[in-house]
Amino acid sequence: MEVRVFATPDLAEEDTLREMTVTVIDVLRMTSVAAMAIANGCAGIKAVAGVAEARDMAQACGALLGGERHALKIEGFDFSNSPLEYTPERIRGQRLVMTTSNGTLAILKANKAKTLMLGALVNADAVVRKACGAQSLGLMCAGTLGAFTLEDALAAGAIIRRLQGMGQSLKLDDLGLAAAMLYDAARSDLHAALKLTAHYTRLKTLGFEGDLEFCLREDCLDAVPTLGADGWFS
Amino acid sequence: MEVRVFATPDLAEEDTLREMTVTVIDVLRMTSVAAMAIANGCAGIKAVAGVAEARDMAQACGALLGGERHALKIEGFDFSNSPLEYTPERIRGQRLVMTTSNGTLAILKANKAKTLMLGALVNADAVVRKACGAQSLGLMCAGTLGAFTLEDALAAGAIIRRLQGMGQSLKLDDLGLAAAMLYDAARSDLHAALKLTAHYTRLKTLGFEGDLEFCLREDCLDAVPTLGADGWFS
Repeated sequence: MEVRVFATPDLAEEDTLREMTVTVIDVLRMTSVAAMAIANGCAGIKAVAGVAEARDMAQACGALLGGERHALKIEGFDFSNSPLEYTPERIRGQRLVMTTSNGTLAILKANKAKTLMLGALVNADAVVRKACGAQSLGLMCAGTLGAFTLEDALAAGAIIRRLQGMGQSLKLDDLGLAAAMLYDAARSDLHAALKLTAHYTRLKTLGFEGDLEFCLREDCLDAVPTLGADGWFS
Repeated sequence: MEVRVFATPDLAEEDTLREMTVTVIDVLRMTSVAAMAIANGCAGIKAVAGVAEARDMAQACGALLGGERHALKIEGFDFSNSPLEYTPERIRGQRLVMTTSNGTLAILKANKAKTLMLGALVNADAVVRKACGAQSLGLMCAGTLGAFTLEDALAAGAIIRRLQGMGQSLKLDDLGLAAAMLYDAARSDLHAALKLTAHYTRLKTLGFEGDLEFCLREDCLDAVPTLGADGWFS
């Protein structure tokens, strides 16, 4: 299997993505949220770019609204971007329209991929089980505002090491090799590896320690949100 | 000191670079070549984008021509992109016009930086001595054809670890943190860390083992090619 890791959505060409199974990774926090919502029975997730568009879409299809701007809840939305809010009681059987600063843009960029999944540390093992038949796998790190983020690279590394652990022979690009090395170096204490990064620090300062604990817990969810022909992840 | 690492030239904004001391890194091989040429007495290096432009420029100022396309020597050029060719006998007192596939484009992108230096593993220590007074340091990895390359990230990590070793307190972005982790993991055997990467493999296949040996030898040169007001590196 050929595996390519994209440091940011900007570095991926849409034509290349069209031929690949793509996993968008936004560990802090959108793809962790999406995995949590689907695991807890959410009926479908749609990612849209703008807040107004999200409100219109949710109203039109009777969906709930989730997401963030500047890491905080958007006025009038049902959920922020905190995975812990997406409990079975609140999300089961509901559809969800999401808009976030980084993960959403990555998802829209990869919209034409052969298969499009949402991956994170919480569902790394499940992503691997679903991706292991692919010929060509793209791991698209969402990053933050166009810049590389370490937590997304670590999740890419986690997926790569699990694929290799299943006996898959991988052809890795340089960032794939680097992501696997970074994961090897960090896996014994992911919090220690991330404590100096900008996004982790910002979320901690804002009081989201519970989210950080959850999002760095590997393989605790079995759900892999996958884009359907109807444009919704389920 | 604030340190930012750019995975590729595309990810750096020219306005940001204007405020920084920038080191362009193209370990395999352009910035290693430039350090070698200056160390061996080259009177000045100019980087230009195109082959025809390079020929015109060299003719106009009586300079020699060096560089590559597809890793190979360009017809009619004096030197290829192999650092071992740039001996004192051939380069001392001569000016050199260079054009290469990746390093040249990174240099042109960073042209307006407050100070612009060329760094690699061969001159990492010398780069650090020259950069240590900067307020804001940009490490711009040249990459290969717009993609991240591990060898350039390792050199960025080498520079970061040496700055910290001098007692500098650094504010690192995520790629800076990652580059330092990668260097820590790889420093005991850089060849082993790079042997699966595309560019290293290609150069080895083409018979450039001597170049690979040289370019991965840390701190063997004291020269740091630095852009002067006249547009030439010396």
